[in-house]
Amino acid sequence: MSYAERLQRITTERGRLCVGIDPMPSVLDAWGLPHDVSGLEACARGIVEQIGQEVAVFKPQSAFFEAFGSRGVAVLERVLEDISAAGALSILDVKRGDIGSSMAGYAAAFLGDDAPIRADAITLSPYLGVGSLQPAIDAAVAGGQGLYVLARTSNPDGATIQLADAGGHTVAQHVVDTITELNTVSDHAVGLVVGGTHADSGCNLEAFNASILVPGIGAQGGTIEGLTPIFGDAMRHVLPTASRGVIGHGVDKVAPLARQLVSEVASRLV
Amino acid sequence: MSYAERLQRITTERGRLCVGIDPMPSVLDAWGLPHDVSGLEACARGIVEQIGQEVAVFKPQSAFFEAFGSRGVAVLERVLEDISAAGALSILDVKRGDIGSSMAGYAAAFLGDDAPIRADAITLSPYLGVGSLQPAIDAAVAGGQGLYVLARTSNPDGATIQLADAGGHTVAQHVVDTITELNTVSDHAVGLVVGGTHADSGCNLEAFNASILVPGIGAQGGTIEGLTPIFGDAMRHVLPTASRGVIGHGVDKVAPLARQLVSEVASRLV
Repeated sequence: MSYAERLQRITTERGRLCVGIDPMPSVLDAWGLPHDVSGLEACARGIVEQIGQEVAVFKPQSAFFEAFGSRGVAVLERVLEDISAAGALSILDVKRGDIGSSMAGYAAAFLGDDAPIRADAITLSPYLGVGSLQPAIDAAVAGGQGLYVLARTSNPDGATIQLADAGGHTVAQHVVDTITELNTVSDHAVGLVVGGTHADSGCNLEAFNASILVPGIGAQGGTIEGLTPIFGDAMRHVLPTASRGVIGHGVDKVAPLARQLVSEVASRLV
Repeated sequence: MSYAERLQRITTERGRLCVGIDPMPSVLDAWGLPHDVSGLEACARGIVEQIGQEVAVFKPQSAFFEAFGSRGVAVLERVLEDISAAGALSILDVKRGDIGSSMAGYAAAFLGDDAPIRADAITLSPYLGVGSLQPAIDAAVAGGQGLYVLARTSNPDGATIQLADAGGHTVAQHVVDTITELNTVSDHAVGLVVGGTHADSGCNLEAFNASILVPGIGAQGGTIEGLTPIFGDAMRHVLPTASRGVIGHGVDKVAPLARQLVSEVASRLV
């Protein structure tokens, strides 16, 4: 089964919400956990223990695991296994981007049945060109996995490069158009990352044909109701992602906050 | 001591060459090593054992270590310690790029005295904006470490985004100019990655004021003598990087090939 089909199945069943697993220092504090590998593990695996059977998709942020070195990456491997065992999908936020054999190395790390840090999807960065990501695309399609390529992010610093003129359209639009074309021969496995807080995203997503990961719902200023004017017809592809709004208030609040957001998404998104 | 000073000191002593530690499958084959964690460790640490006391800088490519999961990252940690113990500098090629707390997570992973995967410098990708890299810049300056930000790469797919028009100059030039300015208040800690195979790099480096990492000398088509027409006055900042040309012919060839290249650099670069 392709990633697009797997995503469709699980979001139909559990609702269209992705919860970010961001065990950053402030979150560890809110959970009363130490800033070490044991605190990392208790927080990250605790989130999956609380809501792994209810939420459709989880997005662990690799940086917070790498911050604890190889032992943190070992925790990440266990978190990804937990997500899989709970029947949910994982989007590992790694924002990798490289060329040739190095890109193939990252594909071997995260994609394919034998990958040691196996996720259902990963995020990628296109500064070296969308074409440079091909080894990951090939691996994802072969493994029924997905990719999310950065197109337009919500941070103020993103504009200069993402809205630069790449021949009559923005860089972000170039990424969108190139991937739309790629998806016709890639099982719609290649999604986008687009910020959810711009009135004008600088790219037209009407013709886009795969999943759109929209981070920053809640703590970063995005709201579920604010998404419709931004995404229009592309709303059907949007996977809203909340992190600190769900996980940032301690372990006891995770389940009620996630349930509230799942029901809010169900009532506001078509 | 700042990274710029440390780099100056070691290259004056040992010559201006960076050797890429790229334990990819074809290199493991050439060394007669298995495609597993033991082969990875024997190859990567073997390179440092052979030439760690002679070569100024090493650039391990993280992807080939991550391909073996957390156990591969543990090997990477040991390789970085080996490089340090041999008195050389390490530039860890991770091409990370993220925002806010996630970027701070990567800084905690690689930069600062207590970083678990500590390197003397790391590579970064600017798709989210040069400004988004600030947490890494702050950490690098505080720790006497360095950064290399992707500006213009040599792969054909890189042109569309890197040469897009960011307001009267290319995206690559925007990266160069922004970082030149940053370096005046950041101890010249922020270098660039620029490919060494373009006749026209699409960016003017004349005013640049920190180290320029130039990968792909040897196997990827770049030559030492080909660098001068490309870099002109900026040649004094260029750190030529060779990988497969040194490490791709088995363990016995590593030392003679590295010595040959160090002497070629000494005779051709001023």
